[in-house]
Amino acid sequence: MSIGNEMYQLAKELFPIDRSLTGSGVRQTLSILRRELPDMAVHEVPSGTRAFDWTVPKEWAVRQAYIEDEHGSRIIDYKDLNLHVMGYSVPVDRWVDLDELKEYIYVQKGQPDAVPYVTSYYTPRYGFCMSERQRDSLPPGQYHMVIDSELFDGSLTYGELVIPGREDKEILISTYVCHPSMANNELSGPVLATALAKKVISQTDRKYTYRFLWIPETIGSITYLSRHLEHMKSHTIAGFVLSCVGDNRTYSYVPSRDGNTLADRAARNVLSFHYPEYICYSYLNRGSDERQYNAPGVDLPVCVVCRSKYGEYPEYHTSLDNMDFISPEGLQGMYDVYEAIFNTIEYNAFYRIKCLCEPQLGKRGMYPTVSKKDSYDTVKGMVDFIAYADGRRDLIDISNIIHVPAAHLIPIITKLKEADLLETVNE
Amino acid sequence: MSIGNEMYQLAKELFPIDRSLTGSGVRQTLSILRRELPDMAVHEVPSGTRAFDWTVPKEWAVRQAYIEDEHGSRIIDYKDLNLHVMGYSVPVDRWVDLDELKEYIYVQKGQPDAVPYVTSYYTPRYGFCMSERQRDSLPPGQYHMVIDSELFDGSLTYGELVIPGREDKEILISTYVCHPSMANNELSGPVLATALAKKVISQTDRKYTYRFLWIPETIGSITYLSRHLEHMKSHTIAGFVLSCVGDNRTYSYVPSRDGNTLADRAARNVLSFHYPEYICYSYLNRGSDERQYNAPGVDLPVCVVCRSKYGEYPEYHTSLDNMDFISPEGLQGMYDVYEAIFNTIEYNAFYRIKCLCEPQLGKRGMYPTVSKKDSYDTVKGMVDFIAYADGRRDLIDISNIIHVPAAHLIPIITKLKEADLLETVNE
Amino acid sequence: MSIGNEMYQLAKELFPIDRSLTGSGVRQTLSILRRELPDMAVHEVPSGTRAFDWTVPKEWAVRQAYIEDEHGSRIIDYKDLNLHVMGYSVPVDRWVDLDELKEYIYVQKGQPDAVPYVTSYYTPRYGFCMSERQRDSLPPGQYHMVIDSELFDGSLTYGELVIPGREDKEILISTYVCHPSMANNELSGPVLATALAKKVISQTDRKYTYRFLWIPETIGSITYLSRHLEHMKSHTIAGFVLSCVGDNRTYSYVPSRDGNTLADRAARNVLSFHYPEYICYSYLNRGSDERQYNAPGVDLPVCVVCRSKYGEYPEYHTSLDNMDFISPEGLQGMYDVYEAIFNTIEYNAFYRIKCLCEPQLGKRGMYPTVSKKDSYDTVKGMVDFIAYADGRRDLIDISNIIHVPAAHLIPIITKLKEADLLETVNE
Repeated sequence: MSIGNEMYQLAKELFPIDRSLTGSGVRQTLSILRRELPDMAVHEVPSGTRAFDWTVPKEWAVRQAYIEDEHGSRIIDYKDLNLHVMGYSVPVDRWVDLDELKEYIYVQKGQPDAVPYVTSYYTPRYGFCMSERQRDSLPPGQYHMVIDSELFDGSLTYGELVIPGREDKEILISTYVCHPSMANNELSGPVLATALAKKVISQTDRKYTYRFLWIPETIGSITYLSRHLEHMKSHTIAGFVLSCVGDNRTYSYVPSRDGNTLADRAARNVLSFHYPEYICYSYLNRGSDERQYNAPGVDLPVCVVCRSKYGEYPEYHTSLDNMDFISPEGLQGMYDVYEAIFNTIEYNAFYRIKCLCEPQLGKRGMYPTVSKKDSYDTVKGMVDFIAYADGRRDLIDISNIIHVPAAHLIPIITKLKEADLLETVNE
Repeated sequence: MSIGNEMYQLAKELFPIDRSLTGSGVRQTLSILRRELPDMAVHEVPSGTRAFDWTVPKEWAVRQAYIEDEHGSRIIDYKDLNLHVMGYSVPVDRWVDLDELKEYIYVQKGQPDAVPYVTSYYTPRYGFCMSERQRDSLPPGQYHMVIDSELFDGSLTYGELVIPGREDKEILISTYVCHPSMANNELSGPVLATALAKKVISQTDRKYTYRFLWIPETIGSITYLSRHLEHMKSHTIAGFVLSCVGDNRTYSYVPSRDGNTLADRAARNVLSFHYPEYICYSYLNRGSDERQYNAPGVDLPVCVVCRSKYGEYPEYHTSLDNMDFISPEGLQGMYDVYEAIFNTIEYNAFYRIKCLCEPQLGKRGMYPTVSKKDSYDTVKGMVDFIAYADGRRDLIDISNIIHVPAAHLIPIITKLKEADLLETVNE
Repeated sequence: MSIGNEMYQLAKELFPIDRSLTGSGVRQTLSILRRELPDMAVHEVPSGTRAFDWTVPKEWAVRQAYIEDEHGSRIIDYKDLNLHVMGYSVPVDRWVDLDELKEYIYVQKGQPDAVPYVTSYYTPRYGFCMSERQRDSLPPGQYHMVIDSELFDGSLTYGELVIPGREDKEILISTYVCHPSMANNELSGPVLATALAKKVISQTDRKYTYRFLWIPETIGSITYLSRHLEHMKSHTIAGFVLSCVGDNRTYSYVPSRDGNTLADRAARNVLSFHYPEYICYSYLNRGSDERQYNAPGVDLPVCVVCRSKYGEYPEYHTSLDNMDFISPEGLQGMYDVYEAIFNTIEYNAFYRIKCLCEPQLGKRGMYPTVSKKDSYDTVKGMVDFIAYADGRRDLIDISNIIHVPAAHLIPIITKLKEADLLETVNE
């Protein structure tokens, strides 16, 4: 089974779980991921804990929730689709007429069949979500609004896996596990992070340390940063937020605030070869945990590489962002891109050719022996790499200049090092 | 009455006065402006005074000037239109035939009804200006050229008004008062400078000191610089030459030689929101006192923000540049732009958000409490400002990056400071 | 006779000589050039000498070479066209049938009438070149392949001419003399270098020293660099490889690896006025000795300014690159460009105007005395030069900014220095 398929099957298994910022849905999700990654640590942070300007919220649990009509028919039910209840709804048990009911119903304008995803994390409130078509077809009458929920002191749960390399400099991969049943945003993220972590573990000769996080969005990254900021600032050389990485429509990139960190440079380099038509957004289009990682004073080198970006595809934050929207091919493409990004970073260095003038490649069997028009073309990639290997340009620079992917240059680097013609220099 | 109308009425009053580089026309003009700005100082610099490579010229006075035909009819008369006499003409009283007369007549090629504006400040010479149509219709015969003028040791006159602020760093506003009856170039300049000075005086809490100058062009700025160069070099943070600021066709900008001074940055920022189609010239298109302020060794941060730029509109330097060419609306638009530029400079600073990660705006009532698609849009300006308030970008940088005018950001800055979330840092 | 014509006649004389990397063809060529430049030194470097990663090859001599058919008719003969024999072919004397013969014949695909230029310098091998049309018309039968050649320890020969200036900083002009009968690539190069050297010698007041080299390509520049690298690194301020400088189709430019050396800046400045449509290649399109001069660690400021660039015109490296392809006009145009480049470099300096504010040009007869619309235009070049002569921009910068060729600015510089208004400053 392809890795794309494995990721898709895992997402399918996680899809029905009732996730929120905190609570049992997150724990259940992480316990399934730990089956794949036994070394993942799961941490609990008590409700009420301060995290910079924020406070870890209460846990939210829903025993049952529905709306029934005066005949006792349930017109929507939380157990059919967890998007039907506004996230963090306080309990309610009231009969109301249709007009009042509508004050508590959220629909998605312009998408009559979509159930929107709505939350009210930080102000006590209750509400229901349904399709516009359903709401508009409700007959007058009495309706019973029932949300049997509880908000209580518990904890915020997150998963963390640090895979050590030869050096203690780190690559951060952050994804989130706080959304109920939606596929691209968000299950594609946790399953891709899991597959990439497995791949990293399988590579025994890593230069860098990899830090994977499965956290609730916003409060999770803020909480994590409040506990690890100094370490992350001094160790992180590149980071990526994994969100919306499962559909197959396009590739997208959101730069870091700085715009030119190693993460940005590697991302743009790989995307320029893998999918030159990729959409290059501005940091103004940020929206997920990169907001925290890039906040002034935090200043981590974190960008976003994804497929159809959050907020930019019509299915986003609705019931239409389901398992039909993502695909094994979509996930596999994104996996390939991140693998190439990691490789590019692993090999990125300032290279310098060790002899003066061009080396005589011919006597080493690395150059065509008959010189005629075009004979040069077959070795142009290597010759161009040598021409720019001046110790002042790193692998990404050279790849960009000579229009040859890092993946093609890595074997050339190996060959030139074997011939004692190339060295790595400190920048 | 709108400020635009007030400026227009003042220009109308000043229009008929016989101005030149020096002399009673300048004094009369400044005395009318002092009615509006009683604190304006008027200075006199004697003819013959050295100013860098230049010398203050003699005063020029015209008692009467005309051409009459052999029947005694005056075909042109200085008292009808002061453009009819070449500026700084020496006296003449001669009868000549038509052919010889034409040697002393200047017309504007391609504009048969326009009387051109011509001067000969630094070489003794006399001449007359009339429309091409009039010249070509003159019948053969004898003509009497009369210029009863005098060039005598007197002084160069200029007005100066320094309005102190909390700091001694200065914003320079320079305009000129040496042209006879023309409206856009130049009366729009002195009347706008006057209105802006009144506005600055009315604002009691100014950060910066404002230096307003009403001088003759070229020799005036050279003379002023020769007396104040060291002070201006150490105090001026931004300066603007006001010329051609009264018509309503477009907006224009001529950069300083440096091209990226605070004056340039504020000007481009304001124009990009006020009138995005503004014409951005090169410093190669300079033409007024910015030539002196930007000269090598002078190096003041001075640019030009105007409406239709000198040299670029057909009416320029002819009798068609009259009170019909400028308008209350044209003047008002320019006034609004300069007011926005001054405000932008007053508030320009390096801002830094005081908490790590994003502040929790929700608990302060500054963020929507229900999170759904689009809820973010209403606060995007504030959130984007916060995202870039890293102490390394000033207000103008942030405004440019997030595409929100400084005028919209100033209340946000105030609100964030009140919430103790924002501080100003030294660059 | 024009210089273009002189160059063309010289190229015609050199055309038939049997040149290769080493040997009597190079010596014969240099001895003809020494007729024009008696001070040129000719150096010999023994075969087997190490030069960085390379070794000076043996000399190659061909006494006779041909293919004859079974009737004794010579179907090709080296003495008719020296391209017929693969360069550095080892001896052969064999009868073969048509099929086997074809294994030793090189043709130019897609150009049925062109005989290609093919070499095998560093692997022992023999071969013949002919037109595709001729090869395809050969009847079956026996053929006699004869190459009576010799490879023996001799030496590599090159010419060198250093013309001293007031300063010991140097301008390098490098061209090559190792190709058999081809005109644009390469005889245009040696004859242009010769004409430019004569011109430099004729100018008695030179600021810079000029170093001219006539060398075999690649091994010649590597050998020369291995003997002179330290001197050249500390003395060379700009250098140019002269190759393909004789046709009249276009102008081309290949930057140095650095891309912004004095050589690059002068080249782009001159070409932008001389032929604004010139083709600007990337360093990725390099191909001649600039590969060695720009190699990492060598780092000389060397670029290429040529007509139709090597590799980019269909006649390149075939028998069609003959005396019909180049012309006196083509050579003359290139000569004019290099002359302008040399002049631009000679006068390039940081200039500063000596007075504060604009100088009063009028009193020196350098400015129109009547001021009216357009009077400014006649002196705009000078006034713009003065406006930017701030000691921080050099002649090339100012020329680029104000869009006036250095050739027009040099007399202005002279005039302003005479008026004591301008000085040169150390950057």
